[in-house]
Amino acid sequence: MPEIRKDPVFGQWVIIASERGRRPNEFALPPEAASTVVCPFCPGREDQTPPTVCQCSGSDGKWKIRVVSNKFPALTPEPPPRCSETGPYQSEEGLGIHEVIIETPVHDLHMDRMDEADLAAVLSTYVERIRELKKDPRIKYVMIFKNHGRNAGASLSHPHSQLVGMPMVPTRLSQEIEGAAKYMSEKGSCVYCDMAAAELEGGRRLILREGPFVAIAPYASRFSFETWIMPVAHASHFEDIPPADIPALAATLKEVLSRLNSSVEGLAYNLIIHTTPVHAPQAGHYHWHIEIMPKLAHVAGFEWGTGFYINTVSPEEAAETLRSGKKHKG
Amino acid sequence: MPEIRKDPVFGQWVIIASERGRRPNEFALPPEAASTVVCPFCPGREDQTPPTVCQCSGSDGKWKIRVVSNKFPALTPEPPPRCSETGPYQSEEGLGIHEVIIETPVHDLHMDRMDEADLAAVLSTYVERIRELKKDPRIKYVMIFKNHGRNAGASLSHPHSQLVGMPMVPTRLSQEIEGAAKYMSEKGSCVYCDMAAAELEGGRRLILREGPFVAIAPYASRFSFETWIMPVAHASHFEDIPPADIPALAATLKEVLSRLNSSVEGLAYNLIIHTTPVHAPQAGHYHWHIEIMPKLAHVAGFEWGTGFYINTVSPEEAAETLRSGKKHKG
Repeated sequence: MPEIRKDPVFGQWVIIASERGRRPNEFALPPEAASTVVCPFCPGREDQTPPTVCQCSGSDGKWKIRVVSNKFPALTPEPPPRCSETGPYQSEEGLGIHEVIIETPVHDLHMDRMDEADLAAVLSTYVERIRELKKDPRIKYVMIFKNHGRNAGASLSHPHSQLVGMPMVPTRLSQEIEGAAKYMSEKGSCVYCDMAAAELEGGRRLILREGPFVAIAPYASRFSFETWIMPVAHASHFEDIPPADIPALAATLKEVLSRLNSSVEGLAYNLIIHTTPVHAPQAGHYHWHIEIMPKLAHVAGFEWGTGFYINTVSPEEAAETLRSGKKHKG
Repeated sequence: MPEIRKDPVFGQWVIIASERGRRPNEFALPPEAASTVVCPFCPGREDQTPPTVCQCSGSDGKWKIRVVSNKFPALTPEPPPRCSETGPYQSEEGLGIHEVIIETPVHDLHMDRMDEADLAAVLSTYVERIRELKKDPRIKYVMIFKNHGRNAGASLSHPHSQLVGMPMVPTRLSQEIEGAAKYMSEKGSCVYCDMAAAELEGGRRLILREGPFVAIAPYASRFSFETWIMPVAHASHFEDIPPADIPALAATLKEVLSRLNSSVEGLAYNLIIHTTPVHAPQAGHYHWHIEIMPKLAHVAGFEWGTGFYINTVSPEEAAETLRSGKKHKG
């Protein structure tokens, strides 16, 4: 029997319909194909990317993490924003920063198999880039995200993340922050703190706890095996994470990705850090977190037309699978 | 230079970034693979679907269009809706109607190649099903949509559409209707009427006009080659379309899909009818229309994280291609 769940923050409806997972499919997602593109992110091909913005080097002097401008940016630093309006239409020039963070020199060393210390260095790079970009008062929001695998929209497989600094707070984030503020005004608490507490007590959607961090399957999961990682204690800005906590975050992220990889055949996912706009003060109602959205199926007309999502694996079932590390039977 | 455009109805931002279309891609969308599933929608296999809800028959007595309940529904008619709330969470049972409209007995006769009269009969079936379902006062909204091709989330290739009757107005629609009402209160006119008029006059995003209908590439196209079909004269409810106009709508839809098929290699798309909630009175601010969203690329982390879209083919370029019927160089 399908169940309709409401996302407590965003107000979005999700339909949990496990029976639909058993329908026949002529079009199962194909496995990832071997690449024919010469990887521009591998060592020795540094001339194929824009110049290095910054890098971390090992004791041998070679780079371990490289940050470069995106060669095909969605947004560019020049010129300044300009609004024009004709008839019913309104536009701005695409001011912003679009960078690529090459996480490792090793072509196929993904986060689930990286050394925890190396993964911690990637997370520290995220923090440093946000702190650097927030010096520009025109940049209102910095989003860090990662597309892993073709079915999640990746165009290159070499492990990399992306950073986009934007001149406005993106729609999704402002709606999320408004939803969290509304929850705070009604219930007097942070909705993310309440979710973390509910899962740590009840446990049906708890995946794991690692020191100051918790990983849960969110109640209104839009995607099968959707997983959120968040600090248990309230914190509004990702870039203010205590440096001493970064190794635990790396350990949590590595373990979550490793279990997802074991449970989901041919795992592809989007990973997104949701955080408070960089110039906003410390906020009691909004709580940074990492959303990992596996892409087992294509989003189809129903979702595009309604704004609802259909998820064929309940978050309780996903969490149980990920707690035990067993294989999901699709 | 990327340009940020604001959707005049929904308020959503879209980044038009043609340069990004030229980035290297290890993971080009694979072609549709041959099916291994025995098609349950072909004649002679009627026992593999739930019973026929209604059908149109030819002069030979055989069915030409069949409507059946969805065997794997996202929503089901029983039991009545019920709200429960525990901690931060809220749910309802998935009350609703989910039907499949099998458009033709011919396994591979897609809309772009159907006889116009047969396509008109499919559109008339849409109208009749909405009129039938709106008799149930619990059904607030009826959405008709179609997923064509794997990359658009189809699970079976035999030409079929889907109908979902829902106990609430979906989020996407209520936001769209609110956006249109806001435009009306600010400018005193219907935003869709204004868009149709602007394109019919200016022509840069006009694809074609066929009698009472116009096809345009919307100003803030989220997807490459996104196409909207709408009546030129104001009309709020799709199911109130004059029967005499249905053949022209069929001709417009067939021509648009045929040109998309010629221009876009391996076309996959979602088609969605956007209309006013069934029990709402005639509305001056909301205008029914059909949105066709080709899926040339996967939606990735940037879109999921921001709620913005990145489109690498400007709607002006898409409209020019579709006006001339030439091939798009990807």
